[in-house]
Amino acid sequence: MTNREDPTLLEERRPEDEVGEEDVREAEIEHLDEDDRLTREFVEAVRDAVYEGDEERVQELVEPLHPADIADLVELVPAEERPALGKAIAELMTGEVISELNEHVRDELFEDLSADAVAQIAEQMETDDAVAMIEDMEEAEQRAVLAELDPEDRAAIEDALSFPEESAGRLMQRDLVAVPEHITVGNLIDYLRDNADLTTEFWEVFVVDPAHRPVGTCQLSWILRTPRSVPIADVMKRDQTLIPATMDQEEVALRFQKYALISAAVVDAGGRLIGQITADDIVHIIQEEAGEDALLMSGAGEGDINQPIRQSYSERVRWLIANLGTALIASLIIAMFGAAIEKLVALAVLMPIVASIGGNAGTQTMAVAVRALAMNQLTQSNTVRVLWREMRVAMLNGVTVAALIGGATAFIFQPMLGVVIAVAVVINIITAGLAGVAVPVIFDRLDQDPAVASSVFVTMITDSMGFFAFLGLAVASGLVS
Amino acid sequence: MTNREDPTLLEERRPEDEVGEEDVREAEIEHLDEDDRLTREFVEAVRDAVYEGDEERVQELVEPLHPADIADLVELVPAEERPALGKAIAELMTGEVISELNEHVRDELFEDLSADAVAQIAEQMETDDAVAMIEDMEEAEQRAVLAELDPEDRAAIEDALSFPEESAGRLMQRDLVAVPEHITVGNLIDYLRDNADLTTEFWEVFVVDPAHRPVGTCQLSWILRTPRSVPIADVMKRDQTLIPATMDQEEVALRFQKYALISAAVVDAGGRLIGQITADDIVHIIQEEAGEDALLMSGAGEGDINQPIRQSYSERVRWLIANLGTALIASLIIAMFGAAIEKLVALAVLMPIVASIGGNAGTQTMAVAVRALAMNQLTQSNTVRVLWREMRVAMLNGVTVAALIGGATAFIFQPMLGVVIAVAVVINIITAGLAGVAVPVIFDRLDQDPAVASSVFVTMITDSMGFFAFLGLAVASGLVS
Repeated sequence: MTNREDPTLLEERRPEDEVGEEDVREAEIEHLDEDDRLTREFVEAVRDAVYEGDEERVQELVEPLHPADIADLVELVPAEERPALGKAIAELMTGEVISELNEHVRDELFEDLSADAVAQIAEQMETDDAVAMIEDMEEAEQRAVLAELDPEDRAAIEDALSFPEESAGRLMQRDLVAVPEHITVGNLIDYLRDNADLTTEFWEVFVVDPAHRPVGTCQLSWILRTPRSVPIADVMKRDQTLIPATMDQEEVALRFQKYALISAAVVDAGGRLIGQITADDIVHIIQEEAGEDALLMSGAGEGDINQPIRQSYSERVRWLIANLGTALIASLIIAMFGAAIEKLVALAVLMPIVASIGGNAGTQTMAVAVRALAMNQLTQSNTVRVLWREMRVAMLNGVTVAALIGGATAFIFQPMLGVVIAVAVVINIITAGLAGVAVPVIFDRLDQDPAVASSVFVTMITDSMGFFAFLGLAVASGLVS
Repeated sequence: MTNREDPTLLEERRPEDEVGEEDVREAEIEHLDEDDRLTREFVEAVRDAVYEGDEERVQELVEPLHPADIADLVELVPAEERPALGKAIAELMTGEVISELNEHVRDELFEDLSADAVAQIAEQMETDDAVAMIEDMEEAEQRAVLAELDPEDRAAIEDALSFPEESAGRLMQRDLVAVPEHITVGNLIDYLRDNADLTTEFWEVFVVDPAHRPVGTCQLSWILRTPRSVPIADVMKRDQTLIPATMDQEEVALRFQKYALISAAVVDAGGRLIGQITADDIVHIIQEEAGEDALLMSGAGEGDINQPIRQSYSERVRWLIANLGTALIASLIIAMFGAAIEKLVALAVLMPIVASIGGNAGTQTMAVAVRALAMNQLTQSNTVRVLWREMRVAMLNGVTVAALIGGATAFIFQPMLGVVIAVAVVINIITAGLAGVAVPVIFDRLDQDPAVASSVFVTMITDSMGFFAFLGLAVASGLVS
C-alpha cells in the first residue's frame, strides 16, 4: 500500500527510447490539474485512442499514471466505454488499481469475469483490500471466488470475513512484526535483517508475552536510536492503545485521533495480538465517513454518483415519501384554518415564510448537535447546558428575524398582521432550537444514528408549528373571525 | 505528540501507596464509558470536589486522565466553574492539555493570564500546537506573547505564521531527520544513536542533496532490514510526494489519502526541505473538516457548541436573513395567484407540499454533488453525465411521489386538482435535480466553496418553482378562472 509513486516524477523518468510523433503528442497533455484531478484533455485523449482502437497509444497514455489515477480514469470514462478501456489497459489493471476503484464501477467491470479471474486479482492484493472487494459481493459469487483462492489466502480472507462489517477485524493487516520481551535491540535488528519474508509495512514493533498478548510497543525511531545491547523491554512503551477486533471502524478512527496514533495492535477476545491497523487506512476511512453526515441528513443514502440509478432511486424515494407524510401533517393544519385564509388571502402569502425560517433554524441547530454528538462533545454532562445555550441563540435569531419580517408586513399589509407574523416567527425559531438539539440527542440515547432520521422529525415539527402558530395567532388575535 | 498513554492502563498503574476512604470512593467511579467519553458520574464527582474546595481530591480524580480527557473535562464543566477547576489542577494543565482544548474555552481561560504565562505554556508545546494556539489570538495579544518567547521558539513560530492560514507551512513540524545521499545504512544508524537531541517523532528519513532539496525517502523499516554496508541511495525511494509549504491543508489531506502516506516532506518555494507532516496530524485535520460540510450547508457557521453565543448568533442570523430574502420571492409568487387561492382554498392547503418535496429532492442531489466535488469525483470530464444521471433519478422519484400525492388529492378533493399537483411535483423534482447539481458545480468553477451558498440558491429555486408550477397550472388548467 505504500510503495506508491508520485506520478509527476514518474512522468519525468519515462523512458525516452522512442522519440516520435506520439511522444510529442503526449508531452502536450498535462494529465493532472493543479488540484490533482485528471484533466479533461487527458481523459478525452484516452477516450479518443480507445475509440480509434489504438491500444498502444492508450497504454502509452495510461502507463505513467499512479494506480489511484488509473482508477479515477476508469470512473471518469462513460460506463459503455469502460470494457474497451479495461481491455486496452488490462496489464495496468493491477490489484492496487482495482482496490482503488469505486465498488459499483468494479462490480460492473467484473460482471463478465470468471470467479477464477477475480480470485487471481484478489491474490495480488493486500488482505485488507481483498476483503474490502470480496465482502461487497453476493454470497454465491463470494463462495465461488473463495473456492478459487489458494488455501492460505482463503483462510486469511475467511477469517477477516468472520468479523462484523466495518470492524477493526476486517480493516486490519495480518502482517506485522512481533517479538518476545527478553531480546535486545541488537537481536531485534538481526531478526529483521535475516527474515526476508517479513512485511516492510510496519512503523512500530509489537512486544508480546508467551501467550502472544501485547505487552508493549516500540516506535522504529526508538530502536534506531538505541545501542544494540539494550533490552527491548527498556525501550518499549508499556502503555498502549489496544484495538479489539470487533470494534467499529468509526470508533477506531476516534481512538487514532484522540491518542495521535500511527499504528495500533488489534487483539482478539482473548487479548492475543492478531493484526495491526495503520494511520493511512484510518485516513481513508475518515475521508469516506466525512461526507456521510451531510448525505444522511439530506436523505441521499449512500450518495455515490457511480451507484446504479435504481439503487439511488430506491434510497432517495423512501425519504421523499417520508417527507410527503410530514408535509401532509402541515397541510392538515392549514386545512383547519381554511376559512381564515379565504377571508384574508395574505395569510396564504405569508405562511410559507414562517415555516421556511423555522425549518432553516432547525437545520442549523441540528447540524451543530449532530456534529457535537459525533465528536463526543455533547454528553450527558452538558446536554441541558447545550440546550439552554441553543435556546438563547434561537431567541436572539428569532427577535432579529421577527423584527425584519414583522416590520415589512406591518408596512405592506397591516400593523396587526405584522405583530402576528413576528410573534409566530419567534415561537417557531425557538421551537426549532429546542427540536434541533432534542431530536438528535434522543436518537443518540436510543442508539440510533442521529444524522439519519433527525431532519424528517425536525422539519415536521418546524413546518407544523410554523403554520399553526401563524394561522392560530391570526384567528386568536381577531384579525379574521 | 505521540508519547500519549492509554488512560485505562495508566489507571491500573496508579500508585497504591495510600489506601483509604478516598481510594474506595475513586474506585467506584468509572471515568470513561464504553464510547470513550467521560461519564456523567465522574464529571459530577469532580465538580463536587471543586465546589467543596477539596483540591487534593480534584487532583486525585483528574491525575489518571489522558491529556485529551482532561481537556474534555474542562469543556464539560460549566464555564463559571472552569477557573476554580483550572486552579485546582494547574499542575496537570500541560501544553498537551492546552493544545487539545477547544479554542473558545482556551480563550476564556487565558483571559486573565499574562502574556508571559501564555508564553511559558507555548514553550512546552510542539511548534505546530503552539502555532495553532497563537494564530487564533488577536494581533496585539499575539505580539505580546511572541515578545515573551525565547528567541529560538519565537523565530520558529514567526516563521510558521508567515505561511497562509490552514497551509502546510503552519501544520508542519520543523524537527525531522535529513541525511546526505552518499552515506551508508551504518552511518545513518550511528548518526541517529550519537545525536541525542534529534527528534524521536519521525517515521521516515529524508535524503537531501547539498542544497537541502529532497532526493529520496527511506521508511525506517527498510533501514532496519538492510545490512550496515549498503549505501542509503540504494535503499531510498526516489519517487516521493513533496508538499509545497503553501498548499492548503485540505489538499494535503487528499494527497495523504491518495498516496497512502504516513509522513511527507514539506518544501519551500526553492524546493528545499523545511519540515515534515505526519499522518496523525492529517487524521486530526480530516476529523475537524469532516463535519464542516454539513454545518456549512445548513448555514450554521463554525457550529461549535463552545463558541460565544454572540458569535453563533451573528453567523447564523446572516443565513436566516438570506433565507428570509428567498422566502419573500416565494411569497411574491403566491401573491400573484391571490385571486385563485381565494376561489379555491385547497390550493393554499396543498401548495406547501409541492415546495417541500422539491426542497428535499434538491437537498439530496446537492449533498451528492458537494460530496462528489470534494472527493474529486465530479470533474469537467463527467459533469454532463452526472447531470443526466441525476435527472433520471429525479424523473423516477418525481413520478413515484406524484402518483401518491396526485392520487390522494384526486380522491379527497377533485380529479383535476390531482392531475395539477402531480404534474407540478414532477416539474419541481426535476428542477431540483438540475439545480442540485448545477449550483454547486457553478460555485466550484468560480472557486467558491460549493457547500456554503448552494443551499440558499437551491431552496430558492425549488420553493419558487413549486409554488409557480402548482398555482400556475391550477390557473392554466381552468380549475380556477
